[in-house]
Amino acid sequence: MTVTYEKVVYSFEDLCEDKKLLGNKGANLVTMVKMGLPVPPGFAVSVDAWKEYKRTGQLPEQAIEDALSRLERRMGRKLGDGLAVSVRSSAAVSMPGMMDTVLDVRDNSTMMDSIRKVFDSWETPRAIEYRRLNNISAEMGLASIVQAMVFGNRDELSGTGVLFTRNPSTGERGLFGEWLQGALGEELVSGRRTPQPLDEMKKMLPDAYRQLEEVARTLEQHFKDMQDIEFTVDSGKLYVLQTRNGKRSGQAAVKIAVDMAKEDILSQEDAILRMTPDDLRSIIYPHIHMPERYQPLTRGLNASPGAATGIVVFYPEEAAIRAKKNEDTILVRPETSPDDIQGIAAAKGVLTSRGGLTSHAAIVTRAMGKPSVIGASQLEIDLKKEQFSVNNVVVKKGDIITVDGDTGYVYTGALPLIETEATAEFNTIMSWCDDLRWIGVMGNADTAEAVTQVRRFGGDGIGLCRTERQFNTPEALAAIREFILGETREELDKVLQRLRELQKEDFVAIFKALQGMPAVIRLLDLPLHEFLPRDSKDSRVRERIMRLMEVNPMMGHRGVRLAITNPEIYKMQIDAILEAKREVEANISLMVPQVITLQELLWVRRIAEGSGLKVGMMMETVRACMRAGPLARAADFFSFGTNDLTQAVFSFSREDAEKKFLTTYFDKGILQDNPFQVLDVKGVGRLMETAIHWARQEKPNLVISVCGEHAGDPRSIEVFYRMDIDYVSCSPFRIPVAKLVAAQASIKDKREHKARLKTLTQQEVKC
Amino acid sequence: MTVTYEKVVYSFEDLCEDKKLLGNKGANLVTMVKMGLPVPPGFAVSVDAWKEYKRTGQLPEQAIEDALSRLERRMGRKLGDGLAVSVRSSAAVSMPGMMDTVLDVRDNSTMMDSIRKVFDSWETPRAIEYRRLNNISAEMGLASIVQAMVFGNRDELSGTGVLFTRNPSTGERGLFGEWLQGALGEELVSGRRTPQPLDEMKKMLPDAYRQLEEVARTLEQHFKDMQDIEFTVDSGKLYVLQTRNGKRSGQAAVKIAVDMAKEDILSQEDAILRMTPDDLRSIIYPHIHMPERYQPLTRGLNASPGAATGIVVFYPEEAAIRAKKNEDTILVRPETSPDDIQGIAAAKGVLTSRGGLTSHAAIVTRAMGKPSVIGASQLEIDLKKEQFSVNNVVVKKGDIITVDGDTGYVYTGALPLIETEATAEFNTIMSWCDDLRWIGVMGNADTAEAVTQVRRFGGDGIGLCRTERQFNTPEALAAIREFILGETREELDKVLQRLRELQKEDFVAIFKALQGMPAVIRLLDLPLHEFLPRDSKDSRVRERIMRLMEVNPMMGHRGVRLAITNPEIYKMQIDAILEAKREVEANISLMVPQVITLQELLWVRRIAEGSGLKVGMMMETVRACMRAGPLARAADFFSFGTNDLTQAVFSFSREDAEKKFLTTYFDKGILQDNPFQVLDVKGVGRLMETAIHWARQEKPNLVISVCGEHAGDPRSIEVFYRMDIDYVSCSPFRIPVAKLVAAQASIKDKREHKARLKTLTQQEVKC
Repeated sequence: MTVTYEKVVYSFEDLCEDKKLLGNKGANLVTMVKMGLPVPPGFAVSVDAWKEYKRTGQLPEQAIEDALSRLERRMGRKLGDGLAVSVRSSAAVSMPGMMDTVLDVRDNSTMMDSIRKVFDSWETPRAIEYRRLNNISAEMGLASIVQAMVFGNRDELSGTGVLFTRNPSTGERGLFGEWLQGALGEELVSGRRTPQPLDEMKKMLPDAYRQLEEVARTLEQHFKDMQDIEFTVDSGKLYVLQTRNGKRSGQAAVKIAVDMAKEDILSQEDAILRMTPDDLRSIIYPHIHMPERYQPLTRGLNASPGAATGIVVFYPEEAAIRAKKNEDTILVRPETSPDDIQGIAAAKGVLTSRGGLTSHAAIVTRAMGKPSVIGASQLEIDLKKEQFSVNNVVVKKGDIITVDGDTGYVYTGALPLIETEATAEFNTIMSWCDDLRWIGVMGNADTAEAVTQVRRFGGDGIGLCRTERQFNTPEALAAIREFILGETREELDKVLQRLRELQKEDFVAIFKALQGMPAVIRLLDLPLHEFLPRDSKDSRVRERIMRLMEVNPMMGHRGVRLAITNPEIYKMQIDAILEAKREVEANISLMVPQVITLQELLWVRRIAEGSGLKVGMMMETVRACMRAGPLARAADFFSFGTNDLTQAVFSFSREDAEKKFLTTYFDKGILQDNPFQVLDVKGVGRLMETAIHWARQEKPNLVISVCGEHAGDPRSIEVFYRMDIDYVSCSPFRIPVAKLVAAQASIKDKREHKARLKTLTQQEVKC
Repeated sequence: MTVTYEKVVYSFEDLCEDKKLLGNKGANLVTMVKMGLPVPPGFAVSVDAWKEYKRTGQLPEQAIEDALSRLERRMGRKLGDGLAVSVRSSAAVSMPGMMDTVLDVRDNSTMMDSIRKVFDSWETPRAIEYRRLNNISAEMGLASIVQAMVFGNRDELSGTGVLFTRNPSTGERGLFGEWLQGALGEELVSGRRTPQPLDEMKKMLPDAYRQLEEVARTLEQHFKDMQDIEFTVDSGKLYVLQTRNGKRSGQAAVKIAVDMAKEDILSQEDAILRMTPDDLRSIIYPHIHMPERYQPLTRGLNASPGAATGIVVFYPEEAAIRAKKNEDTILVRPETSPDDIQGIAAAKGVLTSRGGLTSHAAIVTRAMGKPSVIGASQLEIDLKKEQFSVNNVVVKKGDIITVDGDTGYVYTGALPLIETEATAEFNTIMSWCDDLRWIGVMGNADTAEAVTQVRRFGGDGIGLCRTERQFNTPEALAAIREFILGETREELDKVLQRLRELQKEDFVAIFKALQGMPAVIRLLDLPLHEFLPRDSKDSRVRERIMRLMEVNPMMGHRGVRLAITNPEIYKMQIDAILEAKREVEANISLMVPQVITLQELLWVRRIAEGSGLKVGMMMETVRACMRAGPLARAADFFSFGTNDLTQAVFSFSREDAEKKFLTTYFDKGILQDNPFQVLDVKGVGRLMETAIHWARQEKPNLVISVCGEHAGDPRSIEVFYRMDIDYVSCSPFRIPVAKLVAAQASIKDKREHKARLKTLTQQEVKC
């Protein structure tokens, strides 16, 4: 029965699955029909019809009448006489909540009007704005789906329900959902009536329930993903109204992906590709340490796991702006809507006074792996004053609060957070990623504790061990100050020896924590004056600070420049490393910061001569990039410091730029992303590529890595993979995400290669 | 008579002119013999003999004896019996004053010892150091010249003299020199006796004088350069002892080159290649404005023209270090020696208490075009205390003085300087350069006066007209401060209108001065807080300064960034330009500073829309270089700001670097040159080349220039020429040198091409 009604109206039984013609929803319904699933019959007024309507203002009335007659014949009922239809939109790209829907249409002319209404809703201001924001072409258009309505409120053997094919919170297998007897779907969704767990349906309508289980299995197999299904039972007969991939928590996403791979529904590669960085983040996300110690302010629903601390903001736009400035925020709203997505993505956590576990805010934050407390009804939010009050406490914009998505509690102030334990499935996904990824993922760690974290998160080693922090203990600080103020050779030698002993202790602790992992230790990169107390009353100290002060400290007397003027500091550090190495064997390399000339690198190599340590360098100045060839010959490895490099490429001082004008740059669309968070591919990226090209020309097997902030950013990691970087080194928490993205990049790259090869083969066949 | 004495000793009559064997002096003597000039007979103990002597300690005694016998036969006298010889060194590269000389040798064994002494002097520490400094190979070696002595003190018809074939100070044609009757050359050189002008010789020995004129003409024709000749008349017979290219003042260098080109001794191209930047600088060098107004401290000889102001230093090393820091110095010494050359080159002027017009200091400063006052005998110099006293005035290291090389007066303090008038020959050379150069030379000028200077120096236009200085008048300053502090729209509009009127007046004056020259006006590039008084007591002003202050102002809220946050400033500037243009027609383009993204440039283009002005941009950020392709599409021209670019490439803040560690970098050989003075070819240069390549790929005919400090540096200009830069824009004073170097670069390039072509042709012939 593949009769086409003038090619602009398609009955579901026509089995046309073209999304361009029928939109997403329409094509999915046809797919279900094709799979033999019980779908209420209907037809689609296609995108071609919309095009014609747009051009002429005319609907293909005859074709619609014909399709309707056919529907009436199939249902054995006439419209308005036992038969009602719904009219919905269906675009090729999901635009949730943007288009109009008309339900319970019972006569022909309202049926035509409804189709017009649906088509017209394509041009509403909010739809236009949504398309602009999401880069959706207005030419794409939409279809209108006319479908027989089924009635969950027809009798006692009727009802309506929604279900996930697996638990969306934990990922556990088995149907998970809600059931409302004798009710229409709208009653369930609106929350007007309290639903029952799905088990109630099982007791009441065992056959329909078994059929539902079968439907769920079939749909999962077909779509290879957990489904979110709406269904209605009309006098004991099951109808599937809609299916789509279900939103889920990060933990569930991991479990579902691993389980589906084990069930042979997915390949390991597809399981990895299915994961998003947010899925992992929601698992890795910190939780409150000993929450029982603190007095909560109020409580809501624990809608999305993990805890977050941040500045209170009331508008999503502000969350977005502050995120670009690297400020953590908690977005507080009465409720959220699809318009707030970007603000939610930018915030560290979400708190609402209204809504439930299936509300927009709950679903979205869960999907993003973002802690949220939803429906904290005691909250009185004043959006105008940008403050909320609860239990006589007033919290204003800018105050800090902590939300606990694990318990639903909200606290004032910043509570100490700790991380969750990884699940078995999490570890499985990580081990698959380890197998499939081509680039290494190391961790940045300055202390023994951080080294342990890197090991716990499965890092390949320590890509960056900074030594600046070691000078922050009172003893070391006192010693380095003495060094700066010291004048005689004797004084200097004495204090250097003390510093060496202190450093050695630090290194011994770190080396022990390594347990065989390699580590790259970066020699000191700090202007000396930062070690001096700014408010000192000692005139000698103040005179010295004045002398060491700089107009532009970012570009001042730091890094290897310090080693040129004061070689004894690096010498001391290297000696300390060697002494520590004699106590605890470890695989250690040295890294030189801020190198601009070959001579500087050779200078440090001379200081390190005879140590047997490899000597690499940070690529964090533009000049080093320009001299990548000759430097490659003299260096054992390169590690890009993308933070400093970004500052140099942009001629931005990060502190100043973020305070003074970056916000305006985002507002006015001069910059899209904060280049200190997401690698600036066109500028910094191009410089890196150029440098890597020159370096590998000189030394093809030079190990090149990235240890700047971008090393932990998913979008940037994919760029680094394409640049043929050997490893990234990021903060311990970001290691799992980095591994995931690294594996995904490898898989995608392989698939692209294979796709290209296929094109070639096919072309050859043609010839 | 081409008998070779075992190939290690060469009689002059052997006519061997091989510099590698005979050294410079020896080969020149042979050349003169070949030309038929009267040279005292002699022979050369060759470099091969030196090699053998170095290896075995043995001289080729038999060969030397034979050569000596031959000399005795030729002179008709025996050694010690009416015949004496001199023994001198002769290396292939001039090492003035470094090697030993033995005169008046009258017996054989002293003769052998003298040769040994000359050979041994190759290995003295000062010779070794000289070679190291000048990159001369120790393997090159030297010959020893044994020559019959002639005696200017033999009788009344004898005498000795030195002459330049043209006036070394003015370049005037005609012999110029000194004559000492009945004396040996040494008496003349040492200054023990007072010489007479050369005219005295003409009266006394008219035939010898005529012969001397002929010799001078012959030598000039041969060497194609003005000669510095030493001669002796022995009983009426003229002997030429030595000839070499004569040192001269810049003014003389220009006149001699132009005259020789007109006399067909040189081509125009060779005349241009003969010029050095220092030659031109000595002409362009400023002079004291109305010196009669000032009370001089003391007076010496006016040894080298021009006046200079600077900090007093007593050691050449200090002059060199301070020059790298861009500090002007006057080097004060009792006298100077060849060791001081680099310090003299680094100083702006030289002052000595001893020596005359032919002293080392006088000759060297004249050649360098550096003002000097020599032999200011009242000066009591205390090198230990680093001070000098004169007439009860004590001047210490660090004090500022002015030396007037035009009059020989020395003044305390910095006197106002003005520039000299260009000579006809100077203008001729410049017009030849204009014909031959391929790249444009523009001037940087912010005021109508500076524009006039650019025109006077023959600049092709104004490549950079900065607008920052226009805000420094009390009126404009008051207005911009009001703008910064203004809060209401009305306040701002009012003050912007006032600023526009002030700017318009400035532009009208500049446009009038242009007289048809094109000009590129750079829109404001200054952080707003620089306009506020730092010591203000007004709390509003102080609060505002605090808010505007930056940690790294070099990379802060400046340039086009200001136009993004405060577009009204650029709008005001553009309006002012257009209003001025309506009063005085002028060829004006706009230049945008500190661009990093295409969006910024487009933003300013929008502000300038409808103005009809071309909009170009400074290439002074690394990101702009990386984005050169897309930016080229949107820009009408590029101008590299090499100062800021150097800072970004090096991650150096110039102020900090020069104060804190650059000196150490030079001392330890990490850097050779100050990258803020001489373009860093390997880093900044490579970045520029890369950017130019990308830009021209997008827009092959894009006009690209350089307007940073390096645009006036001779070495850098040659690099820019090779990069295919269209023009450089430098300070007005540097325009002539820039034109010269630009012309020289074109000529050299053409010759290199022709030489390559010749190689190709010859190879083809061989095949």
